Amino acid sequence: MSEWFETLEGLRARVWQRLGRGVADRRAPARHPTLATLGTDGAPEARTVVLRGASEAAGSVTIYTDAASAKVAELAREPRAALHVWEPKDRLQIRLALTVEIRTGASLDALWERLSPEARRAYGGRPEPGRPIGDPVADYEETRERARFAVLDGRVERIEALHLGDWHRRADFSRADGFAGAWIAP
Amino acid sequence: MSEWFETLEGLRARVWQRLGRGVADRRAPARHPTLATLGTDGAPEARTVVLRGASEAAGSVTIYTDAASAKVAELAREPRAALHVWEPKDRLQIRLALTVEIRTGASLDALWERLSPEARRAYGGRPEPGRPIGDPVADYEETRERARFAVLDGRVERIEALHLGDWHRRADFSRADGFAGAWIAP
Repeated sequence: MSEWFETLEGLRARVWQRLGRGVADRRAPARHPTLATLGTDGAPEARTVVLRGASEAAGSVTIYTDAASAKVAELAREPRAALHVWEPKDRLQIRLALTVEIRTGASLDALWERLSPEARRAYGGRPEPGRPIGDPVADYEETRERARFAVLDGRVERIEALHLGDWHRRADFSRADGFAGAWIAP
Repeated sequence: MSEWFETLEGLRARVWQRLGRGVADRRAPARHPTLATLGTDGAPEARTVVLRGASEAAGSVTIYTDAASAKVAELAREPRAALHVWEPKDRLQIRLALTVEIRTGASLDALWERLSPEARRAYGGRPEPGRPIGDPVADYEETRERARFAVLDGRVERIEALHLGDWHRRADFSRADGFAGAWIAP
């Protein structure tokens, strides 16, 4: 009987299990991955996001965001992005290469209806994110705006899993071969 | 008496304090930031790194890495990078925009001498990182190679701090004005 990190199937299954846990449990590490994008000045950018969906069958992940955030402008120009999770208990690093589609408009009505007033705080605000303000309280107004709610549909192109153990193991899984996977040097 | 997150000085001081803690304490969140670079295919890449130095006076951070890792090749082409830390207890996101200089060679001799045999495991290995291998144990050899030890000197160009509280506060600190800082919309 091998450990989960000793086989390609085991590693891949653990990756999706951890991502699924992040969607379901707000205290799981995969709840708050880091999303890296290409900034409009050509330099990389990285920030925490909230993972809202993960489907092994579709090979996809879902993130909600403010349509006025810099990441949306960046992804509109360069849809390739990286999503990063470190699972301390498993000593597992998960790296996803994504192609991201930005979704807004009427197809999100049902999702919006299900969001709590607290959750809706994340979509809106005046002025828009990143604009200079004199005072962080007096010069900023919280708004909840349906039109500012956007969904990032991330198509997983590649998964890299790295397990740090007595022996480090690293594997690469590509959409091209159905995520069959291959070992690579750690 | 204001809270640390209510003033620009307080936020900036907390950022450097947390980074310093990451250098000193292997269990601190800032010990393992995420480094985002521009991949050689033009897509962003993100991975965990170990923070080895942080100096507020110099406005710099230091990372050790394997000279044969993809990130070194990427930074040689595009030295601009992003370093990301999430501090859960402080509810503080730290984002650094860096320009990275890759250091190898004799200037690292003293640092190398101070590394434990265990730490030296991270610099070396055959084949080189990312190369295909048939079996993760039989086809990979651990080596400790002085020539594979590299230091990334990150010059901090910009710091963005985001504190999530009852009221979210976000500030931008630029080298251009001595990191005086300015509030921006969260």
